[in-house]
Amino acid sequence: MSWAGFKKSMNRAGTTLLQKTGQIERTVDREFADEEAKYKTFEKECQALQKDSKGYLDAMRAMTSAQGRLADTIDTFYGAADKSSDGAMAAHSYKRAVDDLDTGVGRELDAPYRTTIMEPLGKMNAYFPVVNEHIAKRSKKLLDYDSARSRMNKLIAKPSEDPTKLPRAQQEHDEAKEVFDMLNEQLIAELPQLLDLRVPFFDPSFEAMIRMQCKFAEEGYEKLSGVQRYFADNVRDDYAAGQLDAQVEGVLQEMRELSICGAS
Amino acid sequence: MSWAGFKKSMNRAGTTLLQKTGQIERTVDREFADEEAKYKTFEKECQALQKDSKGYLDAMRAMTSAQGRLADTIDTFYGAADKSSDGAMAAHSYKRAVDDLDTGVGRELDAPYRTTIMEPLGKMNAYFPVVNEHIAKRSKKLLDYDSARSRMNKLIAKPSEDPTKLPRAQQEHDEAKEVFDMLNEQLIAELPQLLDLRVPFFDPSFEAMIRMQCKFAEEGYEKLSGVQRYFADNVRDDYAAGQLDAQVEGVLQEMRELSICGAS
Repeated sequence: MSWAGFKKSMNRAGTTLLQKTGQIERTVDREFADEEAKYKTFEKECQALQKDSKGYLDAMRAMTSAQGRLADTIDTFYGAADKSSDGAMAAHSYKRAVDDLDTGVGRELDAPYRTTIMEPLGKMNAYFPVVNEHIAKRSKKLLDYDSARSRMNKLIAKPSEDPTKLPRAQQEHDEAKEVFDMLNEQLIAELPQLLDLRVPFFDPSFEAMIRMQCKFAEEGYEKLSGVQRYFADNVRDDYAAGQLDAQVEGVLQEMRELSICGAS
Repeated sequence: MSWAGFKKSMNRAGTTLLQKTGQIERTVDREFADEEAKYKTFEKECQALQKDSKGYLDAMRAMTSAQGRLADTIDTFYGAADKSSDGAMAAHSYKRAVDDLDTGVGRELDAPYRTTIMEPLGKMNAYFPVVNEHIAKRSKKLLDYDSARSRMNKLIAKPSEDPTKLPRAQQEHDEAKEVFDMLNEQLIAELPQLLDLRVPFFDPSFEAMIRMQCKFAEEGYEKLSGVQRYFADNVRDDYAAGQLDAQVEGVLQEMRELSICGAS
């Protein structure tokens, strides 16, 4: 920070303090405050969208790769027992389905998801720091304006013996007001314009997101439902009746009867 | 460790060292080694299955909750603009679909997945430490046996002046062999039995897993495809033609023209 910059920021800190103790009047601009609040909400929403759409992509990848590892293990597992058993055939079909899914996700979803969702969100989010800088600049210029007005008003209330002081204070006040007004009006005019752009900007991303989430589910359903034909139809009912639990318990009982599994 | 236990483990460490330098012959049991290798593979597979089926469950939850947060934000986002627009209707339909999915996953998938997959895997994996202890015990008894045989053979090769030494060494050798043989035969007989149980044990879990993964995809597809009807059919083609990219670029251009977004 330059020396001039340092002096400015010290003066502004002083103004803020005097405003807190009520010695300098603070300009409140309801119109700006409303637009700023809406803008801040928009900023938070965009950041949340970026975080959560990344979260969805990560989950999609995590799911596909967990399925891939499961399919590998199960395929080896059943293949080592009896390659021609129903289980081994189902395991092999599962592995093929999951490999297809993995290729499909990589080719049809991963890259398009980034292009149509992550990248536009990234571009939008890159504008917030620029806009925030404008807002910060407006706040600083507002402090300068409040401080200049206060100095001028004091000279009006209690005239100085130096007749040049008031005109100089008046000029400083007018200049500070002009700088502030320019920035303030720019923000009040353009913040709503920026916000209006959010719907046309996000429409394509939003649509792409729904379509890709839907596609991911559709592909998963198509591929995995093919594996299900290796299973008897009664399995679902057996589950409900607790018979499969009994099967698992029966096997566990056999395990417990082995001395190496702790039978005594 | 007791003093006797400490002495035993010191003696075994000595035997291992003497075996490494070739001074004590090491018993190699090919039959046991084969069964142990298969068992170790099975142990690794079960641990991988547990890890990856947990990974799948986590991904399923992460995906559902990322979708939930996205839907919340998008619903607010479009709702704040124009509640009766196509976008707002689609956003609201998306939010309903995702809420339904979330309830469905919680009720129909989360708990059954744990009961039919995670818990059986957990029970199976709880047996490995018990079996491993048997294997470790066999190794220790094998060292005792190798060491007793070596002592006995030395006394045969170079008889001691004390005539009680050889019979005592012979008795110690016979006892060590008997203990080792008992443990060894138990493992050789029971490890394959344990491995044979893996298929009937996992069949229900494997089937449940395929069915639940399929169900998750099916539900997702059913719910999300309903949201798609809010979108025009030409969007997919527009994507392919790069027109939606142009739409996003057009909006970005408008943003760049705002002075608060850095236009100079």
